[in-house]
Parts: sequence; C-alpha cells; structure tokens
Amino acid sequence: MGSINRSFSKLGKKVSQKTQAFAHRTSDKHIRLAVTGLSGAGKTAFITGLVNQLLNAGLISKSNNLPLWQVTREERLYGVKRDLQPDLTVASFDYEQAMASLKQTPSRWPASTRSISELRLAIKYQPQKGLLAKLTDSATLYLDIIDYPGEWLLDLPMLKQSFSQWSMSQTQRENIFKKSDCYGPFNEAVSELDLSAEADAVQLKQIASLYQELLLDCVNGHGFYYAQPGRLLLPGELVDTPVLALFPLLGLSAETVTKLEAGAPNTAYQVLKTRYKQYQSKVITPFYKEYFAKFDRQLLLVDCFTPLNSGKEQFDDMTQALNGIMESFKFGQSNILKRLFSPRIDKLLFAASKVDHITRDQQGNVLSLLTQLVKQSQKQAKFEGCEVEVMAISAIKATKHAMVRSGSAEVEVVHGVDLSKQETVTVFPGEVPKTLPQASFWNTQGFEFTHFAPPQATASTQGADFEHIRLDHLLQYLLGDKLN
Amino acid sequence: MGSINRSFSKLGKKVSQKTQAFAHRTSDKHIRLAVTGLSGAGKTAFITGLVNQLLNAGLISKSNNLPLWQVTREERLYGVKRDLQPDLTVASFDYEQAMASLKQTPSRWPASTRSISELRLAIKYQPQKGLLAKLTDSATLYLDIIDYPGEWLLDLPMLKQSFSQWSMSQTQRENIFKKSDCYGPFNEAVSELDLSAEADAVQLKQIASLYQELLLDCVNGHGFYYAQPGRLLLPGELVDTPVLALFPLLGLSAETVTKLEAGAPNTAYQVLKTRYKQYQSKVITPFYKEYFAKFDRQLLLVDCFTPLNSGKEQFDDMTQALNGIMESFKFGQSNILKRLFSPRIDKLLFAASKVDHITRDQQGNVLSLLTQLVKQSQKQAKFEGCEVEVMAISAIKATKHAMVRSGSAEVEVVHGVDLSKQETVTVFPGEVPKTLPQASFWNTQGFEFTHFAPPQATASTQGADFEHIRLDHLLQYLLGDKLN
Repeated sequence: MGSINRSFSKLGKKVSQKTQAFAHRTSDKHIRLAVTGLSGAGKTAFITGLVNQLLNAGLISKSNNLPLWQVTREERLYGVKRDLQPDLTVASFDYEQAMASLKQTPSRWPASTRSISELRLAIKYQPQKGLLAKLTDSATLYLDIIDYPGEWLLDLPMLKQSFSQWSMSQTQRENIFKKSDCYGPFNEAVSELDLSAEADAVQLKQIASLYQELLLDCVNGHGFYYAQPGRLLLPGELVDTPVLALFPLLGLSAETVTKLEAGAPNTAYQVLKTRYKQYQSKVITPFYKEYFAKFDRQLLLVDCFTPLNSGKEQFDDMTQALNGIMESFKFGQSNILKRLFSPRIDKLLFAASKVDHITRDQQGNVLSLLTQLVKQSQKQAKFEGCEVEVMAISAIKATKHAMVRSGSAEVEVVHGVDLSKQETVTVFPGEVPKTLPQASFWNTQGFEFTHFAPPQATASTQGADFEHIRLDHLLQYLLGDKLN
Repeated sequence: MGSINRSFSKLGKKVSQKTQAFAHRTSDKHIRLAVTGLSGAGKTAFITGLVNQLLNAGLISKSNNLPLWQVTREERLYGVKRDLQPDLTVASFDYEQAMASLKQTPSRWPASTRSISELRLAIKYQPQKGLLAKLTDSATLYLDIIDYPGEWLLDLPMLKQSFSQWSMSQTQRENIFKKSDCYGPFNEAVSELDLSAEADAVQLKQIASLYQELLLDCVNGHGFYYAQPGRLLLPGELVDTPVLALFPLLGLSAETVTKLEAGAPNTAYQVLKTRYKQYQSKVITPFYKEYFAKFDRQLLLVDCFTPLNSGKEQFDDMTQALNGIMESFKFGQSNILKRLFSPRIDKLLFAASKVDHITRDQQGNVLSLLTQLVKQSQKQAKFEGCEVEVMAISAIKATKHAMVRSGSAEVEVVHGVDLSKQETVTVFPGEVPKTLPQASFWNTQGFEFTHFAPPQATASTQGADFEHIRLDHLLQYLLGDKLN
C-alpha cells in the first residue's frame, strides 16, 4: 500500500504542477521596449539605472523606491530577475560591465552604445483582475529592453530619396559642414573627383573617410546631431565595407545630374548611386524589418541641456534631428514603413534625460520645452495608433539639490562632482527656457550646464544602488497596463 | 557634306566600339580565389605581396619578376589594376594600409586577418587561342581575392555533431587544455554550474568568457591550433552575443547526458544545447552558403616552422587542424556541404609560407613535409573533383640567403632582421624534417626558427616593391588556365 500511496501522491502532484504550469503559460506576457536617443542622450546609463531599480524592487526590497509604479504601491510585485534574452545573435546589453564602471573609484559613466544590444527581465507579479487573478497567484511579464543608436532612425528619410535628391538635401547642410575644419579637405577631394570617369575604389574610399571625419567632427566636435548616412558615425560590423564608402555630392546642378545619370555604370557617379541604393536595401531596410517591426513600445531619451549650452544652431539641429526621428513613428497612411511591415509600437515616450543636472524648479520648464518640440512635429502628421507622452527623468541621480542664500533671497542650486574637474561643485546652471528659445535667450546665453560624474553607488540594503527621478512614473506609463 | 561625314564617322566609331564592347563582354572572365590559413600563417602579408607583384606586372614593367607565369613570359599580360569589389557589404581588404605598414621605418608586418575581406583585380591580357584571340586583342580576367580566417573551417565537423557529441570530442582535448593556466578557473566554474537547474545568463556568459580565455591561451600562449567554436577566437560582429556564450561540457557520462537531455528547456544544459544548434544554423552554415559556396579556387597557407619550433604536441595539433580544414574540400558523396550547395572549388593549393625564413637547401624538405601531411589526409577520403597541389613559397622575401665557411665546409645561412630584437642576424635555422618528424627529431630539437622583420620596401623602378619566392609558379597554377 505504501508504494501505491506514493504513486498516487506523485500523480496528484504532477497534475497540480501541470495545471499551474498551464495557468502560468497563459498568464505570461511579453513586451519589447526599445530605448534610443541621439549620441550623448544617456541611453546606457538610463538602462543600467532602470535595470538596477527593477532588480531591487518588489517584496524582497525593504523600501519601495518606485511608489508611483502601481504594481509596487499595491504590493503586487514579487520581484524582478534577469532571464535569457530571446535573440541569440544580438549582443547582450552588458549590465554587469556598466555596473562595474559605476562602482569604480572614481566612478565612471558606462561606455556608450555602439550598436544594438538587448536584455530580458522577468517581472513576477500578482494579477489583479479577471480570470487570471482567479487562476493563478502569480504571473510573469517578460520585458525585453533593446538599446540602439538613435542615429539609425535618422536614415529613414533616405528611403524616400534617390541619390541625387539626397545629395541636394545634404547641400542644405553645407553651412553646418563649413564650421568644421574637416570640410575643406573633403570638399577639395570631391572637386578632384571626375564623376563621369571610371570609378577608382581607393579614391572613393579616401573621400568617404574624409566625409566620415567631417560628420564625426560636426557631431562630436561642434555639437550637431543630424548625420547621414547614420552608420558612418558607428559603422559596427560594416566597418571598411564599400556600402559605407558613400558621401553626398554637394551643390550639383540639375543639368549635371541629368548628364551623370545617363553615364555608364562604372562611372564614379553611378558607383556612388549603386552604393546609396545598397545602403537603402542592405542597411536601412533590414534594421526596420528585423528589429523595429518587433518593438512594442519606444522610449526616446533627449538631452535638452547640451544643445542649450552649445548654441542656437546646435539646438535647431537637434530639433531637426528629433523631427527626423519622429518620422519613424508616424504610422499614418503616408508612412513609408507601412510598405515594409505593420508597425506595432503603441506607446512612444519622449523623456528629457539627466534632469538631476538642473535645479528642481527648472524641471517643469524642461518638460514644457520638450513637449513643445514634440508638438511642433505632431502638427505636420499624426502619430496614428501610437500614444505619445513626454516626461522629465533621471535614471541615476548624480547630484543633490540644495538651497543657498544669495543676498536676501534663497536660490536653488545643484551639488555634485564635476565630471571633467573631478571636484565637488555647487552650481546654478541657469534657467531652462519654457518654450523654444527666442533670440533673447541666445543673446544672453543664460544657461551653463555642468556634466556631473556619476554618484558613488551606495552599498545598498535599502534596495537599488542609486536614486532616480520619476523612473516609477515612466514604468507606470510604459508597463502599467500590462501588470493589472 | 562635312556634317554628314562627321555623322558617318561617328556612327562607324560607335559600331566598332559596340562590337569591341561585345567581344570584351564575352571574353571577360571572373574567378574567386579564397585565401586562408590558421592564425599566423601569413595571410595578410601574402595577399599584400601578391597584389603588389600583380599591380606592377605586365608590359608596363621594365623587368619580368614573374617569369614562370606563362602570360608574362609570353608577353601577353598588358597590366593589372584594382577594380571595384562586387560585394558592397563585405569589408575591403586594406591593401593601402598593409603597404603603409610595410613602408614604415622600421617596417612592420601588416595587421592580421580579423574577419572576411575582399579585393578585386582586373587582369588585362592578350588571349592566345580560339575565337577570343581572333575577335579581340585584349580580354580581362577579374580576380576576386577573398581573405578569411582558417579557424572558420575548423567548425565544419560541428555540423555533424550534436551538442553532447561535440562535448565528448572536446573532452579528448582536455590534456591540451590542462597545459594552460586558464583551464583551472574554467573547470572550477563549470563544476559550480548546476546543469539541471534553470539557466542563469550571467553565469553562462562568465563561464564562456573563461573558456574563450582558455582557447586563446592555448592558441596564442601555447602554440596550439585547434579551437572550437572557431568564432570564439575572432568574434567579429558576434561579440557579446549569447550564441558565442557557449562551451563544451567535458567528461560527461552517457547516463548524465541521457538525464540532462530529458530536462526542461530552461535548464543550463538545454540552453547550451540551443546555443550550439544556433551556432550551427546561424554561424557555421551561413558562412558556407554565402561565401564558401561561391569560391572557385582555394589557397591554404601553412606555416610549418612555428609548430616545428613549438614541439611535438603543437605539431600534431597543427596536423589535426589541417585534417579538419581539409574536410571542407572533400567533395565526395559523404561531404556534408553537398547537402547545402554544390561546391565549385576545382583547385586547392597548399602553400608552405615564409620559406624565405629557412635556407634554400631546406625548401625541398618543407615541400616534402607538407606533401606528406596532405597525403595522409587524402588517404581517408578523396578530394573528388578538386585538384590538389602543394608548393613552398614566400610572398614577401624578408631575408637574403648566403654561404658561410664553417671549418672546411661551406654552410648555407639566412640573413635578415630579427623581428623581436630588431637587429640584423645571420642564422642557420636547422634542418626541416622531410617527413612527419620522428621521436628522434623532437629529442634533438634540431630546429630554431627566427621570426624576421619585413624587408625595407625598395623605391622600385623595376616593378614590384618586394622580392618573392615562387609566386609566379603559384599564379600559373591558380590562374594559368584562365589566361590562355
């Protein structure tokens, strides 16, 4: 009898396990959250900070650092852990390395995004409503966070342009190019290129290298944002390939274009045109088809402060770049991506990053400024089927806010370690304009933004290693509806 | 009348151009020559030297440096020039950079192959025979040279193995692994891994990093050759991806395997098995389908001297690695590649590289040694439809040969700049064994191979920048039949 009992009890256990496994399977959800932003927006630090908060959240944590995230307020979050990422040939987001950087002495911001990478978290929670709540006492939301350079989205308009149209559109950027010392060598090299003669691979490669240097100098040296082709900034696996040995032909007349279009296929002009087409079909389109098409939600980080520091032209360029990026999310009838696939992104969040770097009383202004930037773009085309929200956040708070007495008044200040000087400073960065800055703002240059070093990570018993600003609000917007 | 005449003459010219263009088109041929070899075989230097000889050959050259290449001896070679490579998303072989390295003071060998790259040359020649010779007085052979790491071919056997079979085959290499200080940490980390528990992505990645260090140390630190998965040595665009977070499980018993095979899909064992399968389908197979399938001829460079220096075990390992590589070229019925495509490689050349590094009287011995290595492998399976040849060459001669008196006898010596000491030395490297070395050879260690620095490139008016050994013989074998 003993052995029969054991068997029965085993069987019973098995059945119950199966039922529960079934309930789990049906209750498990999955969401792909893409995080992007232009170079310097703070993508890597953001993801690291967010993951750190998540891994330390839930019932295991002694304090709730994410009170505005409903699932934590209602004490329905059991916990979050790392899980195996689904795409085995996509790089893993290196959370461990990023944390190691932040925990160094002196602490360092993690290395920046160079290509696409991903990470999966399993969020275990107590369902609140419906059949699910009755069937099971826990469910899992699998969250894939995908990090990719925002510059890749700047290439979208190229899909609608021919090589000559693209060249003309880049000609309008010549005034910006001219600010760089790299413009001269590029321009000179192009002027020595006979576009109707047989193409010389070495010459084209040399000119493309000069164009790459020009773009990099405009972005890294002069604070501009727009750069096409975007992969020239971060070539990744396309390094040294002919498809990136590509540059626009500035200032060509319509007659010249007509003549060159009729040339033999081995002329320099035709070879550049072929490369442009290959860039469209083998670089831009595959990114949208293989990755973008599978994103459920998109977070776009925007550093509003660096361009305010840099000046009017850079700020205008960022505005233009943001408008360019937004083209990828306007899923109306005219959207070119609809020809390629059915976009499924249903929430788009613009987040002004690094708001810990300014005083608290200015955070509302940043929000209003970014909202205006986004709205201006919305005027031209609607984000059909895609809900848009704007926030001001900081994923890893690097500063403390304080009040200091200035004469008879109290002034709010920011206190932290200056990144370049590596010394503690107390600053008032200035007023962030509430609306798109007017001439008067640029004339008075009332803003001086300091880059702060990351905080020393606290050996935490209280949960996460860092403080944050409004990550809970962000989580509620992006994931709240999936955790009911 | 004048204008009519002009028109007629234009028309005549046009027709003649068209006829000639047609003849050119039909006469133009195309060949894809792949160059590979294990790490350190001298692939980059070889291609650079070969291209340099070719670009300086033909009627433009004052002297014929390639007399054994029939097309030059018969003065039918007009000249060779660079042309645009056909694959725009494959990296270009950086000939300019390699030449710049060689022309530095002190001169340096060019940086080694990290991934696949290619370069196209247009070889213009006078056809000798048939209709072609009558129709046209010049034809062009387009030569694509494709450089890729030989380690990629070492992965082929993995296509035939399951994860557990592969683990067992790697267990046989444990004696080699144990020579490395990196074996201990890897082994310890694996022993802490619970294969039947849920997989932890971070833990698997850490163990895979330890395995990667072990493989790199065996190859770079201890002179061994065989390493699987081959991409762990040079990850390229797969850096940080889970498909490379893979390692074999050494010493598993059949019972343990049976138990683990029945485990849930999220166990560490099953996750490693999934990664192995993805490595087969997303890494190994695509290389063969997209690249290897399109090669017409294959050159395999072999550095026989370094393993002779290192010792018996390393030499045996190179032999085994060569046997592994040869599996890719045995196009008989049992060839696994036949399931994927129709291999079209019709000539396979094994070239012992760097033979300028030994005395002239030893070059015959190298040839005979390499021939025996190849024949031994041929015994087991035939290279059906694929002609095999063996040569001893040097693409960039770094030494001078001389005779010195030793007692009453004259001894042949090698004279050059020692790479590590950067000083001129005169050496007798010793006797190269004619056949697979016997115990007596290893006991006496009769061989001491010096790594020489590259020669100072001569500001040449005589053609190429370097001297070579038997590149003309090599060209005749690989391209001769295409230039009749």
